[in-house]
Amino acid sequence: MKDYILKNKKSVNKYLTDFLKEKGKELSKINRWGKDVPKRLSSFVTQGKAIRANMILLSYQMYGGIINKNAIKTASAIELFHSSLLIHDDIVDEDKKRRGGDTIFAQYEKLGKKETSLNPRHFGESLGICAGDIGFFWGFEIISNLKLEPRIKNELISIYSKELVLVGLGEMQDIYLGSISKKVTKKDVYNVHLYKTARYTFSLPLMIGATLAGKKSVLNKLSDIGELIGLIFQIKDDELGLFGDEKQIGKPVGSDIKEGKKTLYHLYLMEKATKEERQKLNKIFGNNKIGKKEIDYVRNLVKKYKIDQKIDKNIINYYKKAEKMIKNLSGKTKYKNILLEILKYNLKRKK
Amino acid sequence: MKDYILKNKKSVNKYLTDFLKEKGKELSKINRWGKDVPKRLSSFVTQGKAIRANMILLSYQMYGGIINKNAIKTASAIELFHSSLLIHDDIVDEDKKRRGGDTIFAQYEKLGKKETSLNPRHFGESLGICAGDIGFFWGFEIISNLKLEPRIKNELISIYSKELVLVGLGEMQDIYLGSISKKVTKKDVYNVHLYKTARYTFSLPLMIGATLAGKKSVLNKLSDIGELIGLIFQIKDDELGLFGDEKQIGKPVGSDIKEGKKTLYHLYLMEKATKEERQKLNKIFGNNKIGKKEIDYVRNLVKKYKIDQKIDKNIINYYKKAEKMIKNLSGKTKYKNILLEILKYNLKRKK
Repeated sequence: MKDYILKNKKSVNKYLTDFLKEKGKELSKINRWGKDVPKRLSSFVTQGKAIRANMILLSYQMYGGIINKNAIKTASAIELFHSSLLIHDDIVDEDKKRRGGDTIFAQYEKLGKKETSLNPRHFGESLGICAGDIGFFWGFEIISNLKLEPRIKNELISIYSKELVLVGLGEMQDIYLGSISKKVTKKDVYNVHLYKTARYTFSLPLMIGATLAGKKSVLNKLSDIGELIGLIFQIKDDELGLFGDEKQIGKPVGSDIKEGKKTLYHLYLMEKATKEERQKLNKIFGNNKIGKKEIDYVRNLVKKYKIDQKIDKNIINYYKKAEKMIKNLSGKTKYKNILLEILKYNLKRKK
Repeated sequence: MKDYILKNKKSVNKYLTDFLKEKGKELSKINRWGKDVPKRLSSFVTQGKAIRANMILLSYQMYGGIINKNAIKTASAIELFHSSLLIHDDIVDEDKKRRGGDTIFAQYEKLGKKETSLNPRHFGESLGICAGDIGFFWGFEIISNLKLEPRIKNELISIYSKELVLVGLGEMQDIYLGSISKKVTKKDVYNVHLYKTARYTFSLPLMIGATLAGKKSVLNKLSDIGELIGLIFQIKDDELGLFGDEKQIGKPVGSDIKEGKKTLYHLYLMEKATKEERQKLNKIFGNNKIGKKEIDYVRNLVKKYKIDQKIDKNIINYYKKAEKMIKNLSGKTKYKNILLEILKYNLKRKK
């Protein structure tokens, strides 16, 4: 599995680097940003885990596709879309660190501090909004220029645009839930997990890969499997955000707490906590001035009420369902097995 | 001309209203925003002047196209792209009024004040970023679902994505120039006018219309003509931003001054002003606390140094070039004449 992923990641990163280098050359004549945006995007996009690109290639091969330029390009496009979503998400979440480095808006904020006289924060956010938009357009450009049967390309664009809309709606709900103090339901949390992460990280690329291979009949099944893997992925992400190693995950631990993100941890904590604890928690969640002490307080309560074990049960449940569905799926066994390995890896990942 | 524009605007608005209504129905099951975003977008997008949609239809008919569902959809897509760009631009410019009403982020800021406990401004901006992104995706979705020869659709998407990237780069340069106090050159201002406005308001839709009509050979000429009409349009926009009637233009007069936008007015003023005046102007431009007094000061200097006349000469120069090129263009005379009328109208518009 690791070899498979690394090899694909290398091909995708190579294509993205070349594509963005070419864009930089072509657009440097427009203005300064024509060179600047491709350069920053290039280093940002190639530092990701390339999960989504791999999901595309895996499902493409599962249904008889042979890796070629078209497949690599299609897989690269999703990494661009993903980077653009992250660029905007980091503005929304006010996250300055990502993938071990400065987020794009934070980079522009620094540039603003050095070169401009106005509010560098707003300057950074504004340039970040534009850079994200540009990444989306390049994603669509890559797809529209594929050397493929046009009908298939249109299907790809249609799936991409529909699913990206759902990500936007999921993000909006996430922002909303993070900004209200009233209690949220498990359904609310599930909804955000599903649309903000699960579908677009797994369902979308699995569907794209099968579409590219001309196998439309499996889209619904792949979509369902993707949701399950994605839910596990998101819940693990929340776990790592609370208990992970800062160096390994590439961003500050506890930032979800500061942002008041409504995770399953938050939900179950609020259910189990005493009135006194709940009052304390309400002062911690959504407060960006908290430090290690408050984060440890949350961690200890999670342990005390065995919330981690309760959440593990949820995950195992999703895992078993997904495993069964993958086994029952049509498609080449070799690649189905890699998908099963990825499903398993997801359970134990530390980054 | 007016009848032509109004009729097309009606058809485009009808399609956009239906499309977004359908989206709202389909997505209301996702979460609250699935209904909310289409509703807000619907009222926002249909309040525009539909210039870009009309440019598409005009150039399409100029090259033999007959207005049908495909043409209306293609023209509607550009209005969605345009709205999304405006939504993001209003966040960047911190503009709360547009098209006579609240901008999208300002609407969400109000909602945030009512319903959430956190910073309503950041809440509004965040939801605005997402809503803009969603509009882009719908634009691409409309194009990918056209009932057209797939090859043409791919060309449309390719032109759209390439030109939208240029808008993003122009916007970045505009933000940058607005945030520095150092002197900008005429070339700088021209660059922003060209990429942030001119090309995408005229060149892009004219090229899209001809592509839709299958007439690729004229794209370069249309692109050049579009740039000239667009430059006039932008310079008039700057004029209206300084001397226009607030009710007619739908946004506060003087906002460009507050934002420190580097317009031709600003450029020429700085060239002509005395040292004393320049010092005063430097305190006015980019200062969002100024009022009518300061705006009048700028206006009076513009008159004093006859900068309006100087700028009029620029415009007339563009006008003459564009007029000649349109007359020499191939295509149906009836629609070429409408384009000439639009060119002329552009010179005198009050809104």
